Amino acid sequence: MSHQHLEALDVAAIREEFPILQREFDGQQVVYLDNAATTQTPDPVVDAMSDYYRESNANVHRGIHHLSQEASNAYETAHDRVAEFINADGREEVVFTKNTTEGENLLAYAWGLNELGPEDEVVLTEMEHHASLVTWQQIAERTGATVRYIRIDEDGRLDMDHAADLIADDTAIVSAAHVSNTLGTVNPVGQLTDLAHDHDALSFIDGAQAVPNRPVDVKAIDADFYAFSGHKMAGPTGIGVLYGKRDLFEELDPFLYGGGMIRKVTFEDSTWGDLPWKFEPGTPQIAEAVGLHAAVDWLEDIGLERIQAHEEELAAYAYDRLAAEDDVELYGPDGSDRGGLVSFNLDGVHAHDLTSIMNDHTIAVRAGDHCTQPLHDKLGVPASTRASFYVYNTREEIDKLVDALDDARQLFA
Amino acid sequence: MSHQHLEALDVAAIREEFPILQREFDGQQVVYLDNAATTQTPDPVVDAMSDYYRESNANVHRGIHHLSQEASNAYETAHDRVAEFINADGREEVVFTKNTTEGENLLAYAWGLNELGPEDEVVLTEMEHHASLVTWQQIAERTGATVRYIRIDEDGRLDMDHAADLIADDTAIVSAAHVSNTLGTVNPVGQLTDLAHDHDALSFIDGAQAVPNRPVDVKAIDADFYAFSGHKMAGPTGIGVLYGKRDLFEELDPFLYGGGMIRKVTFEDSTWGDLPWKFEPGTPQIAEAVGLHAAVDWLEDIGLERIQAHEEELAAYAYDRLAAEDDVELYGPDGSDRGGLVSFNLDGVHAHDLTSIMNDHTIAVRAGDHCTQPLHDKLGVPASTRASFYVYNTREEIDKLVDALDDARQLFA
Repeated sequence: MSHQHLEALDVAAIREEFPILQREFDGQQVVYLDNAATTQTPDPVVDAMSDYYRESNANVHRGIHHLSQEASNAYETAHDRVAEFINADGREEVVFTKNTTEGENLLAYAWGLNELGPEDEVVLTEMEHHASLVTWQQIAERTGATVRYIRIDEDGRLDMDHAADLIADDTAIVSAAHVSNTLGTVNPVGQLTDLAHDHDALSFIDGAQAVPNRPVDVKAIDADFYAFSGHKMAGPTGIGVLYGKRDLFEELDPFLYGGGMIRKVTFEDSTWGDLPWKFEPGTPQIAEAVGLHAAVDWLEDIGLERIQAHEEELAAYAYDRLAAEDDVELYGPDGSDRGGLVSFNLDGVHAHDLTSIMNDHTIAVRAGDHCTQPLHDKLGVPASTRASFYVYNTREEIDKLVDALDDARQLFA
Repeated sequence: MSHQHLEALDVAAIREEFPILQREFDGQQVVYLDNAATTQTPDPVVDAMSDYYRESNANVHRGIHHLSQEASNAYETAHDRVAEFINADGREEVVFTKNTTEGENLLAYAWGLNELGPEDEVVLTEMEHHASLVTWQQIAERTGATVRYIRIDEDGRLDMDHAADLIADDTAIVSAAHVSNTLGTVNPVGQLTDLAHDHDALSFIDGAQAVPNRPVDVKAIDADFYAFSGHKMAGPTGIGVLYGKRDLFEELDPFLYGGGMIRKVTFEDSTWGDLPWKFEPGTPQIAEAVGLHAAVDWLEDIGLERIQAHEEELAAYAYDRLAAEDDVELYGPDGSDRGGLVSFNLDGVHAHDLTSIMNDHTIAVRAGDHCTQPLHDKLGVPASTRASFYVYNTREEIDKLVDALDDARQLFA
């Protein structure tokens, strides 16, 4: 995709909305490169939530009084706004969860536990996050289903020939990350979904690393289910989204039970309410929905295509700079069509030590398995260091990261 | 309980911390009496969350960089603070959920779905909230277990003779509300727990309406599990607590699967991490935990015994004033040992119409079944109007409520 026509981001202006980026430790300003774990939250999003608490806070479910009407409107409208953002067909297709993980579990319990059996296969990829991998493993164990993994090639891309082999008539669901949180690989989720549909299987896409930094159109992908988190897209903690096609959501039994999701309850039995509330029992994340709405507005004001271009440019720059170092091993595909992150190791230095040295320079990166232990086993390393970027990051910050490698070399020489 | 020795609350000073209570609609200041649905959020709680986002926001799970250390400390310390607040044995006994409802579902899935069978009975009360009632109904249906209900008497109190009959060797768990959200009844949850334990059954207490307004000591009750919500105790939406005894939590399988709750994952299998993280997969409600911590501090600064005295005094005043009206039917026990709420109906006026008239006076009360449909069936009414109180409410506000009844009488005469 060419972004030549896109005006570059005014990063300096954007940074003004993030007071946390001005913080200093030991006189050094924070270089925040841990955005794949969580992004920072701009003032308009924080203010939207504070204003909610100070002006409109009430429980929802259409209480009659003024404040409940305001809160209910805000909560419901947030669903509409998210639906528009990902091109879903209205609020009925947008369920608010507490995070991407809950979205995966909702589907695995409400669909998988009821529908899977010993004859069924669940097809994942070798780069799945634990939220998907562990959840399907456990549901498969309970139901007797088999989990299979689409291989990755040496560049960290999916082997689509293997995918075409694996996805077959026994496949009940294909569950794949849109963008790998470790490799940065952008997976062909539309193709995977087509393969699933060719065999009457469902597709679930984990979009936690995609929705924050590129335009996502669930209809263009034709995904049956698609999940993501607010806190990775300039929004608040405590809220995520599970998109599902309306007819599939209609058929699905509820997952969590409680108030606000029922139609009629007796001492003997219950019937369920309308979408999406059927999947949102109890007092929901009202302030968080207000914050997520503000985050979507904020991202669209900047423009998702421009954000994507900015992230790709930073990722390519970081990749190239690190690739030029002989003692750095990089994971995932090169080129520019990757998510805004790079994972790597420095020869002879454990990722935790490297990250600790980075922290001495107030550079925030993350060390570990990034919730992809089996992938790290396959890569043959216990851990990696991951630098991940967002709208407020700059080339200069990446230069600082690369410069700090020398300290590690000296300490561990 | 005598509160004669307690200094009364300085309600005027408390109200200063709630700008929303100054709001006016049509020139009339809000009279917020919908606190059993959600309480308002004082400035220190809102500020704690804003400060978190502006100063310390990062993902937790002990990332190495400064911000992640700060966020991890804040998140973990919030568990410690809540443990202290309810007299639990440390953070291992405190799991953060998204609300009380999720706590009930966590236990019902992680324990009930695995452990219940056709020979087992689940004992509830007739006044249970749908969060408990519907959840146990559904898990019982899947497992073949039977649900039984402890009767209430004409005053809206539990028939403890019936409880002693019902709770027997077939009982696997007793699940009861600490304070009824409809009747205001304060249930003898310690006695119910003792009865459960006499028959080797577990006890689960729904404390959503108790923790906000009275000192709760889970050890004194000896409850095995105890759940409540942040947003009903001056805290934020999006967070709740499930307390569990450590040895029981240790034995319990996880409920939701994902990152942050595992020890080791391969393509074949997984093992689980330590308490309480075993039950908190994915990026948790970090800002909300900070807000909940601030809410606990705020409540304890005032003093839970004083809050209880204030609520009991308002509830008794409201009860007495409404009981003096011949055309008002009140539900639940009289006397002062009730939760801070009164549910009632005005003869000849549907609760929704009455609540709408109250709203014309900017009085916020709630009409409906309050997520206790079977209880309303038993009371013989489709709905009731509920006025519920908190630390910032006054007798004058209750006077306005009673005065507004005349408007309803005139309109529906």
